[in-house]
Amino acid sequence: MNSATILLQWLPLFFLLFSTSVSSSPHKIPKLSPLLETILASTKPGSLSDDFKTFFYNQTLDHFNYRPESYAIFQQRYVINFKHWGGANTSSPILAYLGAEAPLDGDLTGVGFLTENAPRFNALQVYIEHRYYGKSIPFGTLEEALKNASLRGYFNSAQAIADYAELLLYLKKNLTAQHSPVIVVGGSYGGMLASWFRLKYPHIALGALASSAPILYFDHITPQNGYYSIVTKDFKEESESCYRAIRESWAEIDLVASQPDGLSILSHQFNTCAQLNKPSELKDYLDSVYSTAAQYNHPPNYPVTQICGGIDGAPKGSHLLSKIFAGLVAYKGKKPCYDTDQYNYPTETNIGYGWQRCSEMVMPIGRGSNDTMFPPAPFDLGNFTKDCKTQYGVSPRPHWVTTYYGGHDIKTVLNKFASNIIFSNGLRDPYSSGGVLENISETVLAVYTVNGSHCLDIILEKQSDPEWLIQQRSTEVQIIEGWIAKYYADLLLLKK
Amino acid sequence: MNSATILLQWLPLFFLLFSTSVSSSPHKIPKLSPLLETILASTKPGSLSDDFKTFFYNQTLDHFNYRPESYAIFQQRYVINFKHWGGANTSSPILAYLGAEAPLDGDLTGVGFLTENAPRFNALQVYIEHRYYGKSIPFGTLEEALKNASLRGYFNSAQAIADYAELLLYLKKNLTAQHSPVIVVGGSYGGMLASWFRLKYPHIALGALASSAPILYFDHITPQNGYYSIVTKDFKEESESCYRAIRESWAEIDLVASQPDGLSILSHQFNTCAQLNKPSELKDYLDSVYSTAAQYNHPPNYPVTQICGGIDGAPKGSHLLSKIFAGLVAYKGKKPCYDTDQYNYPTETNIGYGWQRCSEMVMPIGRGSNDTMFPPAPFDLGNFTKDCKTQYGVSPRPHWVTTYYGGHDIKTVLNKFASNIIFSNGLRDPYSSGGVLENISETVLAVYTVNGSHCLDIILEKQSDPEWLIQQRSTEVQIIEGWIAKYYADLLLLKK
Repeated sequence: MNSATILLQWLPLFFLLFSTSVSSSPHKIPKLSPLLETILASTKPGSLSDDFKTFFYNQTLDHFNYRPESYAIFQQRYVINFKHWGGANTSSPILAYLGAEAPLDGDLTGVGFLTENAPRFNALQVYIEHRYYGKSIPFGTLEEALKNASLRGYFNSAQAIADYAELLLYLKKNLTAQHSPVIVVGGSYGGMLASWFRLKYPHIALGALASSAPILYFDHITPQNGYYSIVTKDFKEESESCYRAIRESWAEIDLVASQPDGLSILSHQFNTCAQLNKPSELKDYLDSVYSTAAQYNHPPNYPVTQICGGIDGAPKGSHLLSKIFAGLVAYKGKKPCYDTDQYNYPTETNIGYGWQRCSEMVMPIGRGSNDTMFPPAPFDLGNFTKDCKTQYGVSPRPHWVTTYYGGHDIKTVLNKFASNIIFSNGLRDPYSSGGVLENISETVLAVYTVNGSHCLDIILEKQSDPEWLIQQRSTEVQIIEGWIAKYYADLLLLKK
Repeated sequence: MNSATILLQWLPLFFLLFSTSVSSSPHKIPKLSPLLETILASTKPGSLSDDFKTFFYNQTLDHFNYRPESYAIFQQRYVINFKHWGGANTSSPILAYLGAEAPLDGDLTGVGFLTENAPRFNALQVYIEHRYYGKSIPFGTLEEALKNASLRGYFNSAQAIADYAELLLYLKKNLTAQHSPVIVVGGSYGGMLASWFRLKYPHIALGALASSAPILYFDHITPQNGYYSIVTKDFKEESESCYRAIRESWAEIDLVASQPDGLSILSHQFNTCAQLNKPSELKDYLDSVYSTAAQYNHPPNYPVTQICGGIDGAPKGSHLLSKIFAGLVAYKGKKPCYDTDQYNYPTETNIGYGWQRCSEMVMPIGRGSNDTMFPPAPFDLGNFTKDCKTQYGVSPRPHWVTTYYGGHDIKTVLNKFASNIIFSNGLRDPYSSGGVLENISETVLAVYTVNGSHCLDIILEKQSDPEWLIQQRSTEVQIIEGWIAKYYADLLLLKK
């Protein structure tokens, strides 16, 4: 049983509602954050040690308002592991994982950066769940919270990082650890939160490790086709013939679909669990398969290599769509059937982030007519807005992220402002197109690997990890050690 | 007619609702921001040149929420003076005055820092009114807005600086002035907003001049008696006998008041416009008189000197309270009567800032038993909270300002983060006790004068200005020129 088969059973958890192809609906974007291994690990029964203690904090619903309703509190889950902490007396550090668009559970075992480095840093490990996910949903289930037009309004990033601020200050006070430096860590959307947290709350976090954080994928700072250009490049560099096959397959699918009984033929050919109702169901599914493979194109199996192995390895003279199916099977393993709806399951992540995208997290991801191996699908803000309005009754604010957090001219702006942020990326991750890939100053640093994938640096280490990945992680640890050493030196100076 | 007499007729505008003595009600604090000259100037008919053009922006009511109500917009007033601007082609600077807790009108002519330096900087002058003041009150009058428990919740500093962010970005886009550096300027509460704006929105403002901004007067970073200690020091340094007279007068007032018909005697002695109902009315009034005199102890008249001149100059053998009255008359001029309610008029500033103090701007200003020339009046958060709750139905959040903006350990925190902020102060200003008086880094600087008063550096220049004041202003201009020169150099490098 190859690892693809093992992953398979967990896959439904990983993908966002809008993860399906941008081709059918121009406002849909690829999944953002899932840490495959993370979630995988969380599902292993008994894998979480007793050292992880769960708490709940009475969190303020609305930090930026003083209406009576704003004073409502909700229970926010956080988890602490004290095992390796050197304690408040020695001002030993706090590694704080900032939860993202999923329940916290998987992060506790999956985010290796904390569990593996806590002993080295003598660090307290703190994990905070993002509001409206997991056990931190105000007043009921996520579905209920999102149905309530008033309640869902509080579900946004500024409120979320204010939660982290309030909770971290509470913890430091509670542990008499006022002088313990806090390093915040996050991946993908959570990585954006980590970097934004350091920018907005430098008095609370000494530094941030922002893994695979596409903070420049807003407001057209990054070209809309950035994401799919990298997916394309990943496949093309793996195999020119594989890339060509995929590129040509979309028209072929449409052609077959347009024939009498064409959808039945396609359903049969791709062994779909349910009969296809329209060709876009298959195309969206394949789009997600390729995008996911590229985004999580990690060692030792390299999904892109697996898919191209299947496509290129199909018997000579195979029909184009047989090759495509062979690629699918090589990646997902032999299955009784293939669920083309797999990426659309109503998981918390899909549901919750669907709202976040329709309110503020507006990443204009799209494709031009001939710039990727996918059919054209330009991002259309008008349609996107219309759909969001239909679904939620309010319009997205596409400029808010750059208004509040910045992004334009980031090098000029942050070169003489800010410090202690690592933007880590793997260049094979399509989201790296919206990442910070250049050092901004001596302490705002880009640490990337040419062959890395999404959030690879912060997930659990493996025996099979290649040297470049080991090196990336080690660089990150050394940089953070430098921040902490400098902080202690300044603290000593201050006390003298 | 001395300048005190001239000022007199405008004084009712200047003071906050809670400006009366802390002695009678321990949660009342001295007025925060008024720029005497500013408001004075605004009332001179025809003093505003036609170069000031008024506009209104459709501002977002709630930046941090996505409830349908959050999408409401209100009209925010802003004023532009294009006269001296070098234009977008040359990326000439923008000097942006961030409105504070008053209508904008007075600032247009009163804030000399903009009008006097615009030609030197070839700068566009922009003045933005703070939400809920002047012509920028959402949906009606301030009274109506504050009566509405839901509507007043949006009235806070985080929303206000987000207004400034949104509006400045809109203006830069509208003027195709994306590369024009913005310097934000503010005084007192507005000075806090200016420094916080640079911290939160470094991508919008290149730098900030924060005049007399007591950003450390929160959460007990500054000792509670900081304010009144400086008032006391100002008087003591002016005249030991004057200081002693004031110090002893409170008990004397109580003694007279406790006698039969004592309040009539006091009313007559101080020539009050209305009969006193309790001794605290007189004591609160005198407290405000002394505090105001110290806060605005500016050249050439130096109100503290005036008061002490009156007290010390009273005929030999005068009764203590006659001396006190002589001090009052020397400062305020000979009047038909003295209005002890003068500082409590329901001005917009008094009404609006009354709410702001009861929600987030919780400055714990108080006095111990023997540390000032005033009767003891420790700050009592419990009482303060109770009173606010009675008045508005919600509790203040005394830790929010330090949670959101920081303040604790400011030197350590901002030394390696942030840049381009001037904290200017005059050490005779009682609010300087909560100001930043030490350089934090090479570009986060404290520029103060030993003899300066509240916001003196940013108000209109006068022929009589002493050398140390001219020097302070010139230092500030040079620092800002340095920021802008560096910015242009970096811009050029970038374009190469």
